[in-house]
Amino acid sequence: MADEIRTVALLGGGVIGGGWAARFLLNGIDVRLYDPDPGAARTVGGMLENARRAYGRLTLAPLPSEGSLTFAGTPEEAVSGADFVQESAPEREGLKRALLAAASAAADPDVVFASSTSGLRPTRLQADMDRPGRFVVGHPFNPVYLLPLVELCGGERTAPETIERAAALYRAIGMRPLVLRKEVDAFVADRLLEALWREALWLVADDVATVAEVDDAIRFGAGLRWAFMGSFLTYRIAGGEAGMRHFIEQFGPALQLPWTRLTDVPELTGELVERVVAQSDEQAAGRSIRELERLRDDCLVSVIQGLRAHDAGAGAVLAGYERVLMAAAPPGPVRADDAPLRLHDAVVQPDWIDYNGHAHESRYLHVFGDATDALLRHIGVDPSGGGSYFTVETHLSHLDQARAQERVHVTTQLLGHDDKRLHVFHALYRTEDDVLLASAEQMLLHVDARTGRAGAAAAEVLARVARIADAHGALSRPDRAGRSIGLR
Amino acid sequence: MADEIRTVALLGGGVIGGGWAARFLLNGIDVRLYDPDPGAARTVGGMLENARRAYGRLTLAPLPSEGSLTFAGTPEEAVSGADFVQESAPEREGLKRALLAAASAAADPDVVFASSTSGLRPTRLQADMDRPGRFVVGHPFNPVYLLPLVELCGGERTAPETIERAAALYRAIGMRPLVLRKEVDAFVADRLLEALWREALWLVADDVATVAEVDDAIRFGAGLRWAFMGSFLTYRIAGGEAGMRHFIEQFGPALQLPWTRLTDVPELTGELVERVVAQSDEQAAGRSIRELERLRDDCLVSVIQGLRAHDAGAGAVLAGYERVLMAAAPPGPVRADDAPLRLHDAVVQPDWIDYNGHAHESRYLHVFGDATDALLRHIGVDPSGGGSYFTVETHLSHLDQARAQERVHVTTQLLGHDDKRLHVFHALYRTEDDVLLASAEQMLLHVDARTGRAGAAAAEVLARVARIADAHGALSRPDRAGRSIGLR
Repeated sequence: MADEIRTVALLGGGVIGGGWAARFLLNGIDVRLYDPDPGAARTVGGMLENARRAYGRLTLAPLPSEGSLTFAGTPEEAVSGADFVQESAPEREGLKRALLAAASAAADPDVVFASSTSGLRPTRLQADMDRPGRFVVGHPFNPVYLLPLVELCGGERTAPETIERAAALYRAIGMRPLVLRKEVDAFVADRLLEALWREALWLVADDVATVAEVDDAIRFGAGLRWAFMGSFLTYRIAGGEAGMRHFIEQFGPALQLPWTRLTDVPELTGELVERVVAQSDEQAAGRSIRELERLRDDCLVSVIQGLRAHDAGAGAVLAGYERVLMAAAPPGPVRADDAPLRLHDAVVQPDWIDYNGHAHESRYLHVFGDATDALLRHIGVDPSGGGSYFTVETHLSHLDQARAQERVHVTTQLLGHDDKRLHVFHALYRTEDDVLLASAEQMLLHVDARTGRAGAAAAEVLARVARIADAHGALSRPDRAGRSIGLR
Repeated sequence: MADEIRTVALLGGGVIGGGWAARFLLNGIDVRLYDPDPGAARTVGGMLENARRAYGRLTLAPLPSEGSLTFAGTPEEAVSGADFVQESAPEREGLKRALLAAASAAADPDVVFASSTSGLRPTRLQADMDRPGRFVVGHPFNPVYLLPLVELCGGERTAPETIERAAALYRAIGMRPLVLRKEVDAFVADRLLEALWREALWLVADDVATVAEVDDAIRFGAGLRWAFMGSFLTYRIAGGEAGMRHFIEQFGPALQLPWTRLTDVPELTGELVERVVAQSDEQAAGRSIRELERLRDDCLVSVIQGLRAHDAGAGAVLAGYERVLMAAAPPGPVRADDAPLRLHDAVVQPDWIDYNGHAHESRYLHVFGDATDALLRHIGVDPSGGGSYFTVETHLSHLDQARAQERVHVTTQLLGHDDKRLHVFHALYRTEDDVLLASAEQMLLHVDARTGRAGAAAAEVLARVARIADAHGALSRPDRAGRSIGLR
């Protein structure tokens, strides 16, 4: 069943055809592309450039050597010698039918033909083809080189084997086939997209919202969930412990409200409710609401954090919130002359623990980093102001093990300073019995926000540092300060 | 304008009220909750537990001390002394009106009342209230403690100041207010959600797809984009260089096709097209299609990688694809005598980044820890066997900054060893330009699994270590090896 696909013919090189070209090429498959538009080479080149950049970030797994791209002058030339054909011409039935008829007459008889159509029926598209049994709709989503979904829909004359062969190829290039159980206009995904899009246009047409407000209503809310959970699983969770039946019973009546401009409403018959409930149970596969909630939350956290890296959508909201939290964090309850300072307490979190049952070494540094942040707030450093201190060097010693849920605290001793540098010694204790678990000696360097270079801290900050230095001058130097690593 | 909110009264403690409780408490605000359901305490407790876990992963920024949660026996008792009231009772107009009437009569006169209703009109909800000018809809999304969107909609009697005060509070607790320009049933987001949900039910009712297939059609495709871009910006990009006008002209006719079961279609008048085009231009704010494509792709990559960590949706597809790529790739180029060894590559993940836009110092140690793990595998240490090496001391130097999505790698040099100890020097480079970002000198100690004490490693392991030591003997000692910290 597994075809060895070395060369793919693409009929059409617009946004979708260009996206297919990029995905096939990056998966080591040669591409022969036909498009009568002289701008196609530029479009495909741009998509390929985008795709190379995206794959470089997407995965560390070793990709095969990139395939070669050639342009063909006719559909017949493109399909000659190809192992698979993907058609992505404009959405006009006559155009697609003529193209598929001509190309199928020229191709090897066993080659599968897939169409990227987003809504036309395969039974009609395959009507004029040579050997129509090898035709199937393979409908991708933009950008084709990144989104995994591809809808497969056969027509009346499509051989089941054709669907299996196309699905195997799509899987091999990192996609997720969804095989339709029925031939319908617009398949499944675009019917959902169209429903949302029509309502969005109504909202703008009625001046209820602008296009930016409609988009915000999606991307700051439900859109974050849709990245990993569709409506049904989401609503199963919203139904709480009682699950899907409860949700439908509670919210079903709202379907009859004249809320949207979309007036044709499915009747919630007993049979439909039973079907939804049974299918939802199957989808949940025994996972409890609590388990599903945690999966949802973990995914949301990762999605929002991912978006923060690009200052986009909900990630930008998180970044702004964090700036406010940093600025608002209260000065500790301590006095500047406490010796040593005790500015940070924490509880060992379950996800700090590695397979040995101990906190991962990096989590110790995380706690020490929090203690440093607390010290900086304590001496009046305002990260939104003129500058901040960065860690340039850290010497960690591990003396005992922290375990999950233990309460710990850090003491901080100032060992030295000048107008740019702070030399500090943190000690991490288990609070219950005051056992020393680890220590971190650090050198911090003040960086000026405007120049990005090392520079003196503000006079008020240096004054607070000097007060702490006075108070800490009487402390003895910790045994582990000034260590270097070596086999002695 | 900025109220000092110390105590919030919540009327209703179900999934939404419990989510509000969690968000307020984690933001240091005390909560007084009224719910006649004896199960409310359990629901709220579960939400709070979920939220603590999620926030612990969401942000490294310092959260204020958690607020205190108390349960009130009556609505009047809950609002007494509260600075803000959030009502989240079941979606029945009569019930909400009575609750708001009773609570508003007992509350301080200046306190804002917000309702979590997902569709009822504020003009009707505020009708029986004492001082109705202080009422506004503040409609959140589940889970309230993670999703930033909150829709604000005033009624006929709502004072503009009320909306501003509610928005300021929501912003302060990390949310993203969307203020509606008109009072409409179901506001904006739920009209979009309803449109999608009705079409989803049609697909199941007509047996075109199962609930799992509908969800897959969302989460493997457009749902990944909706996490950061709504329909309008997505379609602007799909229109290519010609932008929104081209997209509407090309795809507008499809609105008239009888694809979905939703028959009421907005007429694409010239006026509507102009409005959409002008608003889309404003939304794009001068960014070219190429810029928007790259933002979209960067966000998609981060979202998919984030989901991979939980083996969810498109992330699970990526993981499966990577396993296939790994299995198909030729064996690695590393030999035991490479000097230095290069055993670990990584991409800087979005959640490594702190509020300064740089990787948190603890994440560098995480990467070095992974490099140490790779070294231990390389020398044949089997953690399920007789013992393993533990880090006892680490000296980190930070030389340059890593940013999100950069590819990095670690080289490892063996500086010394005996039968219990390994003295290693890791160097972390940005792969693109081979710039040294950081180094970590480490002393590792072998611990016997049976006794839990330091002990010699297995002979086979020591033999591999000796081979590496031979190969590394010719390398010069790194400049930064053997350092101690001090003001010089």
